[in-house]
Amino acid sequence: MKLDQIETPAALIDIARMQRNIARMQGHMNTLGVAFRPHVKTTKCIDVVRAQIAAGARGVTVSTLKEAEAFFASGVDDILYAVSMAPSKLPRALALRRQGCNLKLVVDNPTAASAIAAYGDQHGETFEVWIEVDTDGHRSGITPEQDTLLEVGRILHENGVKVGGVMTHAGSSYELDTPEALAALAEQERAGCVRAAQRLREAGIACPAVSVGSTPTALAATQLEGVTEVRAGVYVLFDLVMHNIGVCALDDIALSVLATVIGHQADKGWAILDAGWMAMSRDRGTSKQSHDFGYGQPCLLNGTPLPGYVVSGANQEHGILSPIVENADAADDVTQRFPIGMKLRILPNHACATGAQFPEYHAVAPDGNSVEWRRFQGW
Amino acid sequence: MKLDQIETPAALIDIARMQRNIARMQGHMNTLGVAFRPHVKTTKCIDVVRAQIAAGARGVTVSTLKEAEAFFASGVDDILYAVSMAPSKLPRALALRRQGCNLKLVVDNPTAASAIAAYGDQHGETFEVWIEVDTDGHRSGITPEQDTLLEVGRILHENGVKVGGVMTHAGSSYELDTPEALAALAEQERAGCVRAAQRLREAGIACPAVSVGSTPTALAATQLEGVTEVRAGVYVLFDLVMHNIGVCALDDIALSVLATVIGHQADKGWAILDAGWMAMSRDRGTSKQSHDFGYGQPCLLNGTPLPGYVVSGANQEHGILSPIVENADAADDVTQRFPIGMKLRILPNHACATGAQFPEYHAVAPDGNSVEWRRFQGW
Repeated sequence: MKLDQIETPAALIDIARMQRNIARMQGHMNTLGVAFRPHVKTTKCIDVVRAQIAAGARGVTVSTLKEAEAFFASGVDDILYAVSMAPSKLPRALALRRQGCNLKLVVDNPTAASAIAAYGDQHGETFEVWIEVDTDGHRSGITPEQDTLLEVGRILHENGVKVGGVMTHAGSSYELDTPEALAALAEQERAGCVRAAQRLREAGIACPAVSVGSTPTALAATQLEGVTEVRAGVYVLFDLVMHNIGVCALDDIALSVLATVIGHQADKGWAILDAGWMAMSRDRGTSKQSHDFGYGQPCLLNGTPLPGYVVSGANQEHGILSPIVENADAADDVTQRFPIGMKLRILPNHACATGAQFPEYHAVAPDGNSVEWRRFQGW
Repeated sequence: MKLDQIETPAALIDIARMQRNIARMQGHMNTLGVAFRPHVKTTKCIDVVRAQIAAGARGVTVSTLKEAEAFFASGVDDILYAVSMAPSKLPRALALRRQGCNLKLVVDNPTAASAIAAYGDQHGETFEVWIEVDTDGHRSGITPEQDTLLEVGRILHENGVKVGGVMTHAGSSYELDTPEALAALAEQERAGCVRAAQRLREAGIACPAVSVGSTPTALAATQLEGVTEVRAGVYVLFDLVMHNIGVCALDDIALSVLATVIGHQADKGWAILDAGWMAMSRDRGTSKQSHDFGYGQPCLLNGTPLPGYVVSGANQEHGILSPIVENADAADDVTQRFPIGMKLRILPNHACATGAQFPEYHAVAPDGNSVEWRRFQGW
């Protein structure tokens, strides 16, 4: 299907940009001498994941058990479920392992560790668990020097659970925007996670994997001594938040929302689009960054950005495209520049959030033809 | 299924609250002597829509053609598609009408009006179109006194299209929070829409329907002279934005997200939930209102709100529950008050956005048993 035949709103993936992003990340990881385990929560799409694996990824990271189940059903068997385990979800984890999935769980507290040990014992299953390490204080995990680290390690190790490694995610990298700050955080993430592994090993607990990553720190890292693998998700498509952080150019962004002009408020300089927040998502991740892109950056159908314009507002199925600087010409211009029926591509703030609004991507090849790539929803 | 058997995160509808909300709105419309046409974009769920129709609703309002197709397939045949028509979508509208759906389209500009007339002529179909009126400047529509109103009316009327009525949506009501301001806007919405109908009729264009509404103005209206029907959507579930506007109590909110405590950062007073923004949505609609509820208001499993706490932050699958006022006790308290595995219900900022994150609702009856109500996604 050609671009102008796709009904709007639609989520487009530019295949050439996506492949370039995959090659860039995998190449950087190869240079640093570490394995790469992409976080597939960004796309929840087997077609994208197959491209990541074909480029050299080893295993995947997931954020839900539904992702684990779906990707295992599609032939991916090395899966890290990177959210601290809720004991009530153990039956689904057991079912996956019994089907042959090499599923690794994550914990950051003694209660969940004990629950996994007890459940494994009860069902004769040796679970593999990675311990989550907190290297930047932004969310979950145990800091490398906390006593709880060894407590959790011992609960697992002494009760028949395999401690497969430690993992950390320096999500505070999303708040930075200079190469120096990103490189410093990448080193902090590396050092903290390696230190946690060292403490476990000194306590007699094998800790083979040392897993770090976020898209900004993965790209900023210059040496990863002691690290065995890196995880990152949004790099595969990139978005305006990543652009503001400084890790991609606008023309690296592989996801856009195809939209149609459906109206105007000429006196205000507005064109109304059929892509509102249901299509763009409510993510306003650029609102506190150096450049606020509103609900997205409009581009022509061929991908050329229109830097003087932004999607400044959104209702459920209406987006408001308006000039960034209000000027006297805008009112005259908008109906001619953006006539009814014109199609535009809107670059999103956050690829993970925008993609989740759609049941499928339209993957566009360099020749302009597209195919449908399904993605899934829910838990 | 009982509440404690439902896997988290999950979207719960409290059936008794929903029925109370439906009865309240329908009763108010009956008192005002107007028909009620609920906007079903809020739930995209036939089980909810059947309850609205059973209570007296006449027809539905939709925001996408997919909603029109899905609800028509479920037996609803009086449908207003309340987004200005993109000419490229006319084949789907034609298909619906040919199947017997009484689908009404909306336009606010001459180009789309001409396109509908030409397409109808080409295919021998008499489309019904309602003209969108702008009564508060917040988005789309033609203001009542603009020449364009009659121009669009004539294009339709003189080219074989039935002008079924005028419609308006005073969406700026979401920015208000006093009964006086809401009542004034309801009157402005009514008067503007009635005036537009009057101008069309004076120009010899029949305009049978005069349709107004948003949840806040619908509930605030005290007289609707000249209006034939009202539309509203979110009233069926309500949410924290509506609570801040002042049109519902916390215990009217029928939608909540069931979540499990999966971790803590005790020194910060945080409990980590398995409901992040993928479950709550990225909607931060209360951020500029009188009370900022973060990503949601935590409640006990029985529905009792915990007013000292809020979901203050969210990543894709992690929510951060924290005390509103930081105090010395919080750190000691959080692990005991919210132990690992505890389930909570989180009231959302915006029911339309939160519901859209889920493939289904779990509809909970007063006896605590729940059934699954499917909802759909996409366009």
